[in-house]
Parts: sequence; structure tokens; C-alpha cells
Amino acid sequence: MSKLKDNFITLSYGSGGKLTSELIESLRKKFSNKILDELCDSAELNLKEERIAFTTDSFVVKPLFFPGGDIGKLAVCGTVNDLAMKGAVPLYLSLSLIIEEGLSFSVLERVIDSVSFWAKKAKVKIVCGDTKVVGKREADELFINTAGVGVIFSQDIRISSKAKPGDLIIINGPIAEHGLAVLSARQNLGFISKIKSDCKNLNLQVQKCLEVSKKISVLRDPTRGGLATALSEIAESSDLGIEVYEEAIPIKKEVKKMCDILGFDPLYIANEGKFICFVGKKDAYKVKKALGKEARIIGKVVSSHPKKVYLKTILGSARILLPLESEQLPRIC
Amino acid sequence: MSKLKDNFITLSYGSGGKLTSELIESLRKKFSNKILDELCDSAELNLKEERIAFTTDSFVVKPLFFPGGDIGKLAVCGTVNDLAMKGAVPLYLSLSLIIEEGLSFSVLERVIDSVSFWAKKAKVKIVCGDTKVVGKREADELFINTAGVGVIFSQDIRISSKAKPGDLIIINGPIAEHGLAVLSARQNLGFISKIKSDCKNLNLQVQKCLEVSKKISVLRDPTRGGLATALSEIAESSDLGIEVYEEAIPIKKEVKKMCDILGFDPLYIANEGKFICFVGKKDAYKVKKALGKEARIIGKVVSSHPKKVYLKTILGSARILLPLESEQLPRIC
Repeated sequence: MSKLKDNFITLSYGSGGKLTSELIESLRKKFSNKILDELCDSAELNLKEERIAFTTDSFVVKPLFFPGGDIGKLAVCGTVNDLAMKGAVPLYLSLSLIIEEGLSFSVLERVIDSVSFWAKKAKVKIVCGDTKVVGKREADELFINTAGVGVIFSQDIRISSKAKPGDLIIINGPIAEHGLAVLSARQNLGFISKIKSDCKNLNLQVQKCLEVSKKISVLRDPTRGGLATALSEIAESSDLGIEVYEEAIPIKKEVKKMCDILGFDPLYIANEGKFICFVGKKDAYKVKKALGKEARIIGKVVSSHPKKVYLKTILGSARILLPLESEQLPRIC
Repeated sequence: MSKLKDNFITLSYGSGGKLTSELIESLRKKFSNKILDELCDSAELNLKEERIAFTTDSFVVKPLFFPGGDIGKLAVCGTVNDLAMKGAVPLYLSLSLIIEEGLSFSVLERVIDSVSFWAKKAKVKIVCGDTKVVGKREADELFINTAGVGVIFSQDIRISSKAKPGDLIIINGPIAEHGLAVLSARQNLGFISKIKSDCKNLNLQVQKCLEVSKKISVLRDPTRGGLATALSEIAESSDLGIEVYEEAIPIKKEVKKMCDILGFDPLYIANEGKFICFVGKKDAYKVKKALGKEARIIGKVVSSHPKKVYLKTILGSARILLPLESEQLPRIC
């Protein structure tokens, strides 16, 4: 990318002409693989399985870089995780960039290197892409869309949005770190907080769960809207009730402290490396073990109070968890 | 969508909370199908074929509505056409929106209705999606990303970016209408031009070609950068020369006239409903016939002057067609 003529991206790099080719060529080199190098309008994939998972996400996080991650890492992990939440092995990603005129090549290169690094980590290939450039103030630096294709390799796997009565709910680790990390980067709160985003690929952890249990009904990563919103949505689509126990929900001390200072409820703050797993009671301890030492059983699915999530507090009372009503913090992913 | 509370989209609609659910719900109703209605993070597709085509495109056209189309139509046709250019039958699309705060629901609804209409026309299903809202001046009204999945149903189909010596080049109709239509909408040139965008789905026309010939080597839709850039890229990747005949290239009179007035070269202006087909000489007339009465044979592939495209002019001279150097007209797709 260092061979490109200018320090900053101009509209001409989005024209579809010679400069676009140069830009795309410099990006392509970062991901070089047989499929991408065919240079066709579409990538050709060879999939031996019939059950395919397909998903998309656009990323508009601000700022582009934050403690524990950046928009490139997020764009890979977010889509990899959406595939994993369907019980699929993620295989292929597309990568589409909308660039604001004036973005520096060095920033773009850092982001693309991050995409490349995290794609390798997740064992997914970038096989097709697109690049658009828009004028000043027509976008904010850089937006990324990734779509993903994976295979659900076993007929046994039946992940849906519907939990079963009696399912226990397991989370793989402490919540609310991503949203706070982005906030602190945006507002220069580094002096009161060292919280890093939990952003990571979840596919290998999910695979471990699926290997030890055939009784997993729902997998969900509580991103925008946080844990409370994810639980509400699942209660709603399952037409069942959910009970969660406040003291069982893992939250790091510094996260609790920062939430107290800022008046945020950690249950509504976005995560990018966490997921909840709804699993039949008999298999719950196996799955918890497979998820490692940070995993916790945080609640269960009940037939009483359908579509409602009750949080049993440490004080013994119960409050209803509603889905997030409006914006706490925009552009966290 | 009329049930939504506000007239304009606010940041809260992108929070991942209740308003996001309402917005997504109102969008989902427009596309209702079994896969989408599962409400999972990923869509599950059942593909019986092993050879899959996968592609992505982001659309940032300005203005959102122009003669002959709109960003929604473009977002469907663009991705459907990219799949068709690999010889695939397009089946499934994702739909990801980046919305600028303040966009009116009525504009969004018009665009989404257009997406729905053109998806039905192309016989593709919208199976997954994403919605982000960014602040004022952090995007320009609305950007759309679509990714697409299709199947290459026959082992015989081998479309690549490499032409063969002796291939004839066929185009399915007259060029340069899309770019001019967008320009005239943007600059209010309606008074001098009634040119409409040629934006359309090409999958059925491509299928007809593939049914009559097994000798098609390259399919390409000359979008950004126009016909000249597409031909240059194919000459480059084939390591072969191309000769095209100026008088054979179909251009409507009013397009020629407007290009003359504005000083544009129609060979470099974007199309959204045209494609070029490189086919062995013996099958060329069959393919031309399958493409209908607007199709023309415009040139051939030669072994002399590799990587160069020569335009034989009406006056008998020849000039080299280079790829587009820099921007003629930004944000045409």
C-alpha cells in the first residue's frame, strides 16, 4: 500500500478506474488466496455440505481504534460470531469498504492488517470485496461491511431463536467491556479506566460446546443492547419466561465501578466477545466446563411469566428486564 | 412502517434496543419468508449444489432516486448481476443499511419497497440483514450493502476473468445511460435530457446465453469505469489483445448528444444493465440471438498486442483504450 501515490484517499480511488485497481490490488495482496485472486465479480466457493449459514453486518464504530480492538477486528469477529451463533463453522467473508475522502492510507492499512490478522485467527478467508469512496462529511472516516458464509456440518445441530422450558443459560465470561472501552476511547476517559474491549472470535469456543452437547437450543451474542436485550428477545421469540440471578452474572470490578460513575446499567452495554448458550439441564455442566473457568450459569427458562425476563437481585427482590428503550451510546459497533 | 412513532429516523433506532426491533420488524414484514422469519443471527440456507457464487457490493449513489431507478433497485440488481457474471443463479441476498440520522421513514419505505420489488423480479430472497444509524453528516442519507449467494448449477460452466484468443465480444445493448441519468438527476439537467438509467437484473438474460453455448469464457458488467475499463481489465488479466469497432458499439442518439455537450466519453460512463460476453466464434451468433435485438458483436480477442485494447474508429484509425484514469463522476453506484 506504500506504493500508492498519495498519502490520502481521494474520490478518484473510488472511480472504478486505474486508481481503484491500484487500491484494490494493494488490498488484495493482504488477503491473497486462490479464490480472491481469480478477480471475478463473484467468488466461487466449493461447499460439500448442504446446510449453509449466511449473515451480514455493517460496522460504523467511532473511533476506529479503541482499547482491545479496532473496526477491522470488529468486522471480522462480528460476522464470524454471527455464523458461530447458528452452529456453523465460518469459512468465507466478503469485505466492503465505504471510505470518506481524505482518510489516510496508513489508517486504512492498519485496519486492513487487522482484518487480515483476525481472519487468519478465525480460519476464514476473505474471498470478495468492494470499495467505495464518498466525499468529505458524506461518511465518517471508514465504514466496513462483512458478510459471511459457513457450514453447519452436522444434521444434529438445530440452533434457533427458541429456547426450551427448563433450559439453563450459560455465559462464557464477564459482560459490558466493549461498550465501555469504546466510550472511554471516544471521550478520552483513559485516565479513569483501563477497560479493554472483549472483542474476539467465538467460533472455536462455540464448537467446543457443540461437541459436548446435542441439547443446545439457542446461541446468542449480546452485542448492541447488551445482555438484557438479548434475553428479552429470546423470551419473546420463545414465548417463555426467563429468570436470571444478579449475583451469578459475571462483571469485573472496574466495569462495575465505571458503570456506577457514569450511571450506566452493565446489563445494557454491548459485548463483542461474549455469548449466551441455552442448554438442557442435563448437559449444562458439561457445556460450562467446555467454556472454561470464566463461564457461569446465570439463569433458566421457565414456563411461568411468558415473554418476560425477571432479574432476581442480590437483595432478594425481582425486577423485570425490558429490552433497551433508546440509545445509551451510539456507534459502538 | 407507518406505525413507527416518528417521521424521521433518530439515533435510537440504531441502538439495538426496542426501537431497533420495531424498525427491523417493519422492514422484515416487507420481505417475509421462512428463512428471514427465523430471527437468528445467521440465515440457514439449503443448497443442493457444491459450486456456490458469493459476492458483495456497497451502494452510495447520490441522489437516492434518479430517472430509471433508485438505490434500492441498484442494490438488488448490482449484486444479482455480479452473481450472474459468474454464471450463477442468484438465490439469496443480505441487506445491510447505514442510515443518516434524520432520514425520513417515507424515503426509507420507498427504497425498501423498491428492494422488495426488484428482489421478487430476480427471484431472489432477502434472508438476513443489519441496520445501523449514524449521526448527522456522518453518512449521506442512506448507504446500502447487499451480499449475494447463488449456485452454479452445471459443471460445464467455467466463467473466469480470462478470455480466449479468437473469442468474439457481444454486448447486450446500448451503453452509458446509467451514469448520465444519475448526473442529470444530481445536477437538475432534466431539461436537456430524458435519459433513464439502464439499471436492471441481468440474471435471466445471462441464463439464456449459458443455455445456448458452452463456449462462454468471460461475462462482465461494465459498471464503474464503463465499457473501456472493463475491456482493459479483461485484456490485462487474459494477457491477450482486444479489438473493438467504434461503429459497432451501440449508443443511443440522445446519449451521444449529451456526452458531446458535457465533454464525456461514453465508453467510460457507468452502466447497470449491460454486460459483455466473450464467446468462441462458432457460438457467437447463437448467443447474440439469445440476447435479443439490441445485442451487438462489438469486437474480438487477438493474440497480437497483449494487454492492450484497440478501438478501431469510424475514420479507420485505431486508438488505444486505457482504463479510466481518475473520477469523471463520483457516487454513481
